[in-house]
Amino acid sequence: MRDADVVVVGAGLAGLSAARTLLDAGRSAIVLEARDRVGGRTEGDVIDGHPVELGGTWIGEGHSEMYRLVADLGLETFPTWNDAGSLLLDLSGKRSRLAPTKGATPKLNPIALADLAQGLARYGRLARSVNPRAPWTHPKAETLDGQTYETWVRRNLRTPTGRAYFRVLAEAVYAADPADLSLLHTLFYTASNGDLETLASTDRGAQKDRVAGGSVQVAEGLATGLDVRLNTPVRRIAQDADGITVTAGDGTAFTGRHVIVAVPPTLAGRLDYDPLLPAWRDQLTQRAPAGTVVKCFASYPTPFWREEDLNGQAVSDTGPVKVTFDVSPPGAEIGVLLGFVEGGDARRWQRLPDGERRRQVLDCFTGYFGPAAATPMTYLEKDWSAEEFTRGCYGAHFAPGTWTSYGPALREPIGRIHWAGAEYAVEWSGYMEGAVRSGRHTAGEILRAANR
Amino acid sequence: MRDADVVVVGAGLAGLSAARTLLDAGRSAIVLEARDRVGGRTEGDVIDGHPVELGGTWIGEGHSEMYRLVADLGLETFPTWNDAGSLLLDLSGKRSRLAPTKGATPKLNPIALADLAQGLARYGRLARSVNPRAPWTHPKAETLDGQTYETWVRRNLRTPTGRAYFRVLAEAVYAADPADLSLLHTLFYTASNGDLETLASTDRGAQKDRVAGGSVQVAEGLATGLDVRLNTPVRRIAQDADGITVTAGDGTAFTGRHVIVAVPPTLAGRLDYDPLLPAWRDQLTQRAPAGTVVKCFASYPTPFWREEDLNGQAVSDTGPVKVTFDVSPPGAEIGVLLGFVEGGDARRWQRLPDGERRRQVLDCFTGYFGPAAATPMTYLEKDWSAEEFTRGCYGAHFAPGTWTSYGPALREPIGRIHWAGAEYAVEWSGYMEGAVRSGRHTAGEILRAANR
Repeated sequence: MRDADVVVVGAGLAGLSAARTLLDAGRSAIVLEARDRVGGRTEGDVIDGHPVELGGTWIGEGHSEMYRLVADLGLETFPTWNDAGSLLLDLSGKRSRLAPTKGATPKLNPIALADLAQGLARYGRLARSVNPRAPWTHPKAETLDGQTYETWVRRNLRTPTGRAYFRVLAEAVYAADPADLSLLHTLFYTASNGDLETLASTDRGAQKDRVAGGSVQVAEGLATGLDVRLNTPVRRIAQDADGITVTAGDGTAFTGRHVIVAVPPTLAGRLDYDPLLPAWRDQLTQRAPAGTVVKCFASYPTPFWREEDLNGQAVSDTGPVKVTFDVSPPGAEIGVLLGFVEGGDARRWQRLPDGERRRQVLDCFTGYFGPAAATPMTYLEKDWSAEEFTRGCYGAHFAPGTWTSYGPALREPIGRIHWAGAEYAVEWSGYMEGAVRSGRHTAGEILRAANR
Repeated sequence: MRDADVVVVGAGLAGLSAARTLLDAGRSAIVLEARDRVGGRTEGDVIDGHPVELGGTWIGEGHSEMYRLVADLGLETFPTWNDAGSLLLDLSGKRSRLAPTKGATPKLNPIALADLAQGLARYGRLARSVNPRAPWTHPKAETLDGQTYETWVRRNLRTPTGRAYFRVLAEAVYAADPADLSLLHTLFYTASNGDLETLASTDRGAQKDRVAGGSVQVAEGLATGLDVRLNTPVRRIAQDADGITVTAGDGTAFTGRHVIVAVPPTLAGRLDYDPLLPAWRDQLTQRAPAGTVVKCFASYPTPFWREEDLNGQAVSDTGPVKVTFDVSPPGAEIGVLLGFVEGGDARRWQRLPDGERRRQVLDCFTGYFGPAAATPMTYLEKDWSAEEFTRGCYGAHFAPGTWTSYGPALREPIGRIHWAGAEYAVEWSGYMEGAVRSGRHTAGEILRAANR
């Protein structure tokens, strides 16, 4: 069978959620996946016999669909490790410890603290004024989209610590440098994810919970009973008055009434389309680059940092690892540190030889958590920008000028071609939650069109 | 024969110049071209029996290789129409006329004039400090690359007229909006093309001369005697220790020792590579979008604007056509106006119905040159962003953060894969001259490697 009501390109959370929604509504769907596995930007691996998440990891405050899905699939969540100690803040040469409850105040000098507080308040007000459904309709959209986030930081924060905090925050959230980002884009993303505090937090924030056994099980559960064709990279999408034909790299053709392209924008832009996509849409995907992030894991006999009253979370402005988490498997003895190498750090670091990359990461871990971090049992890294069928994580970001020029093209179907993915989500953009909601929304768009 | 020393992808000026250089050095080259014609972003058409240039048009001050090539091919140049009258300047609601000699002073109010003069001087100093071979090595590269050109304009120009001038200039030069552009990128481009005055000028500037009969004849002349395979879109490039295999869409394979990819960066990024391109290079092409420009031509029984003491050149800050030229065929009776629709104007305008697009363009022409412009004999438009094998003109531009993060990846070969095109030129980037120089340079890179 190579015909269905809808052909879905990509078996990530968005594509699988779309197909599931269509099936539940009595329609047929075939999901074509380039890789030999489902899950897209969620992927499971094993470190010392315990599951680790190479990709998407967290479910957070307000991610209602993911929590429901996890429960429906018979899976369980557990809280991100947040107890037994403080977060380590290492900004502009000064270290401080911070109790990890949302809204806690770092022990910084009063001037830096006032600067940071004012910056956060000002940024928060701006973000609340942006409608994540249509950022380009903001009365000052052109001004906000005409500058980089970096420009805003330089203008609105006066202390090195305040600036460092805002910069590290952007790197951690977008896996991009502050210079890469349109201010309007960061405001959109913040509004889409509640507020800056939610985005940045574990406790009651976007990094609140994890899935026991690994997040990839959600994709695997969603895929159960769906018609998913693995190892089927799509090359070409043709549409006419009757329907669509989706052709794989080996020439196999699949037909349907609609197609949902549920891959990151930069990959969607590399497919062949017949007829050609309008210039407007093609130029949008030329301007939707993916971030740059590598996840680095190191395992130890115990989570020794907890003895030092540290919770394994570090936020630093000296890389290459600027953000860390304790991702030790719950109930096990071993300790696992996760370090992110992001943005410009990743671009430099990924070109180093293997040994040197590892050395730099462990140097960071040692600097944050002491000499015991220097000798892990196992060291593991995953560079998402080197993946043929992803080419960057966490997701696409927009440079200045893109939202105001091309924003309306983002979610608009082109005839029978529809778009889905974490990038297309109005709510919880960039998260697993956003991917699921976007997939369901796009499936609904097709169901509504068919009912008219 | 499907084997040569070098396989060249793209029969634009860069690819053809590269192949010609290789042939002259005794090497063999096959040029694969997706279209049914050579010339790439230069293309000829006819209006009322006279040649027009749908793409690249001008040869300017310092474009020594193009002048030599034109002479070698037995072609001739003629000066861009610049006589009989003034350029029309229409900025922030005020019109003035400007005699078209380089360095002439527009008749603006003294405050606007002082503002503009100071802005030009300041920008010029900055541009002279940037090395176009390696913009990322500038001591303030991160600061310059961390802001948009728009941010610089807002900070450094105080009058509406001064800002309008700088904005229109950027739109005309990059076919992009001031918000889209890294300041460092515009400084690189300015340095690569001499200075701002050269970039902006006809008389003694980058728009000085044209090729009699049309610029596409240069590509056609270069192609004579070369092994060019038309209608051969390339899909895949594989390399190993022995050489390269370049596979076309229909499966035909060509082999060689090296390959030169001489297509715009956004198209180079859409090919399949085996082994995969490094993350660094792939993410660069995700960040090298092409500009947005439509060329609109209207022909009239005579160049009637010359009677009104106007030279057919208009520069306005109210679109969609903000820049015009008199491109009447020399020696003929008819008059031809060329209008550019660029950047954000083009992105809105290209989605209008045919009749409305034409109406808006002719309204602009009428506003600048009088009611006679409303009824052309022939109207013709060319939207380069709608072209499958170009996807935007004049060329790629870099958003903030790209030069500093990925600059060194731009011209560096990946094993046996080399890059060429107007985007890769150190001198005269973005012009036909840059394409020719880049093609020759890249061919030289291969010849030098082979001789080692």
